[in-house]
Amino acid sequence: MALIVQKYGGTSVGSPERIQAVAERVKRWHQQGHDIVVVVSAMSGETNRLLGLAKAITDDPDPREIDQMVSTGEQVTISLLAMALQKTGVAAKSYTGAQVAIRTDSAFMKARIEAIDDAKMRADLAQRKVIVVAGFQGVDTEGNITTLGRGGSDTTGVALAAALKADECQIYTDVDGVYTTDPRVVPQARRLDKITFEEMLEMASLGSKVLQIRSVEFAGKYQVPLRVLSSFVEGEGTLITTDSEQTMEQPVISGIAFNRDEAKLTVRGVPDTPGIAFKMLGPISEANIEVDMIVQNVGADNTTDFTFTVHRNDFRKALPILEKTAQEIGARQVIGDEKIAKVSLVGVGMRSHAGVASKMFGVLAKENINIQMISTSEIKISVVVEEKYMELAVRALHTAFDLDAADA
Amino acid sequence: MALIVQKYGGTSVGSPERIQAVAERVKRWHQQGHDIVVVVSAMSGETNRLLGLAKAITDDPDPREIDQMVSTGEQVTISLLAMALQKTGVAAKSYTGAQVAIRTDSAFMKARIEAIDDAKMRADLAQRKVIVVAGFQGVDTEGNITTLGRGGSDTTGVALAAALKADECQIYTDVDGVYTTDPRVVPQARRLDKITFEEMLEMASLGSKVLQIRSVEFAGKYQVPLRVLSSFVEGEGTLITTDSEQTMEQPVISGIAFNRDEAKLTVRGVPDTPGIAFKMLGPISEANIEVDMIVQNVGADNTTDFTFTVHRNDFRKALPILEKTAQEIGARQVIGDEKIAKVSLVGVGMRSHAGVASKMFGVLAKENINIQMISTSEIKISVVVEEKYMELAVRALHTAFDLDAADA
Repeated sequence: MALIVQKYGGTSVGSPERIQAVAERVKRWHQQGHDIVVVVSAMSGETNRLLGLAKAITDDPDPREIDQMVSTGEQVTISLLAMALQKTGVAAKSYTGAQVAIRTDSAFMKARIEAIDDAKMRADLAQRKVIVVAGFQGVDTEGNITTLGRGGSDTTGVALAAALKADECQIYTDVDGVYTTDPRVVPQARRLDKITFEEMLEMASLGSKVLQIRSVEFAGKYQVPLRVLSSFVEGEGTLITTDSEQTMEQPVISGIAFNRDEAKLTVRGVPDTPGIAFKMLGPISEANIEVDMIVQNVGADNTTDFTFTVHRNDFRKALPILEKTAQEIGARQVIGDEKIAKVSLVGVGMRSHAGVASKMFGVLAKENINIQMISTSEIKISVVVEEKYMELAVRALHTAFDLDAADA
Repeated sequence: MALIVQKYGGTSVGSPERIQAVAERVKRWHQQGHDIVVVVSAMSGETNRLLGLAKAITDDPDPREIDQMVSTGEQVTISLLAMALQKTGVAAKSYTGAQVAIRTDSAFMKARIEAIDDAKMRADLAQRKVIVVAGFQGVDTEGNITTLGRGGSDTTGVALAAALKADECQIYTDVDGVYTTDPRVVPQARRLDKITFEEMLEMASLGSKVLQIRSVEFAGKYQVPLRVLSSFVEGEGTLITTDSEQTMEQPVISGIAFNRDEAKLTVRGVPDTPGIAFKMLGPISEANIEVDMIVQNVGADNTTDFTFTVHRNDFRKALPILEKTAQEIGARQVIGDEKIAKVSLVGVGMRSHAGVASKMFGVLAKENINIQMISTSEIKISVVVEEKYMELAVRALHTAFDLDAADA
């Protein structure tokens, strides 16, 4: 008899038929005696339809009015799911974010949850009702409707699970779990039964878009066990939980993430004086360009080479800014490269295993893949390679680190 | 410098372009120095789209969930209109019924307004903001969203006007005012500059579907001057106001209403004893069939003929019920007729003018139209005639009572 929060995304509730399928699934859990709180997104396509209406009116909409408008997407889904549950004989009641209430700050379109009132939900659960809550939205102290930003329904699920001290937060999606890497690139990729929050954060931020990164941070912070499952096929999914719950035989590497959305910028012959890094990255940051990897090497003649990566979409914008800075500080040259990819090994296991980096470099060397940049953290090693070698690098590393499925 | 509440229906806000046109119109009023509160309906078709989704899930939806769902239709429109106003440079802010708050009872799908909090609106108006409020909806004391029933946006407009003591409530629609009768039947029909609440109620209930009858009752009760105008063409529309504001030269008849949605049921040879009317109409009312006109004549042999009309859709349902009752009370015969139409003269002027009824009967007689039933009130005379004579009756009466437009 557990208290479970389940979150279903837009594809899972994309039609009346799919909503009925979700109702059937919720009913099965409920019949097992569990208390269920369901969080749903807008039906797939609905948020874009609404934004299209706004776009037809203005290019510069008031964020408050955008939130007032797009929050209706989830409001429709909660009602439909409550009706579908009632149709199957399960008592159910829907709540908007404001009705719960999920209190947020007033940062429209990117609000942060400040508090959740669990009184109404507790009362309903005590009556064995299934509660259906609109994801992605909340309400500020003035009664204005806010949204948590796109994809924020995962965050709603985790926040509700934390507020209710739920036993598990289940995120239903169109994949059946978290994989060692993208199965489209490596057919032998394996579904992980468990992964730590930290690993998941590294995997997510590196391009494995299974879960919203913010919801994982949130789940980690409040120690809410998070499970990723498919809404279409049955299965255990992947449990994301704390380090301490890991099994003894934790493998060294949990997964391999990769990302070809980046571009590399290098300033050569930078005078090696204090404050140079800030001088170069300040104007980039002011232009709202996010920087990912940063590497600096000491070079000859008291100069240094400074390299960083940005999103590929920002490359053309970043280049002239950097060239201007380079001239001002007397650097020798600016080089850019859009044809790169980042490949990362992720695993809490590497904390206690030496030699992961050297093994990784050895595997890549054996495949004649040149490493352009290296960046490491406690549970991750990332390298930048020429884009065309990305798949080869991922496959070779996947095999070398024993990630391939036994039967694939 | 007046405080004006304007209500725009679904057709008026049916597309982003039309919403922009409404914004331009609101801006013109606002620029004249008036304070403006706008009430809007859902974009045309949206409420039916939502009900269709619910219908795909269940034939017996929970009214609470229906209200939770359909209320999103207006919520989208208020946001879009607020954006469109801001785009034209007018400060604007949208409110759902719950945000205002418009407090109602908990009768989902047919809630009644109990109180309106005007604090937020007053504060916004003081800052010269245009306020955009979702029509058709409110909130109960538990925070549940309620709706006033279909077409209830007119009621919202009037209720807000009453709460704010507005100078006028303008209902924008797809006709440019209230006409002496339906121009599709009588091309010479004239737009009325003014009409009283009572007349409007008689016209509305008799089939001139310009305004929701409930909103007219509401406006009359709270003495809110109501104006019907077109959202597509400029014009003064028709002002609906109290009797005392009528001009001296008030014509005898203000308009002619008609209705072919009724059917007639007659019980002949009913024993003329007390309680007979109740015995006959009780079972009809229990079957949720609404009765409109009721006429009883004393017949021969201590028996009477009892006739009433019901909506034509209820005719087949009413007939067997009545036949059963007729048998029980020992009546002679039940006759039904679906091919009837009701034609009514409406006008507060007839209070002080004798002979309106006899003139009416004379006009119909001259056209060889047989009158099947007659029913009168202080400001209305209704007759039931054979359906095929309806248009002829309306046209003849329209001319005879000097309602034809001078230039038509």
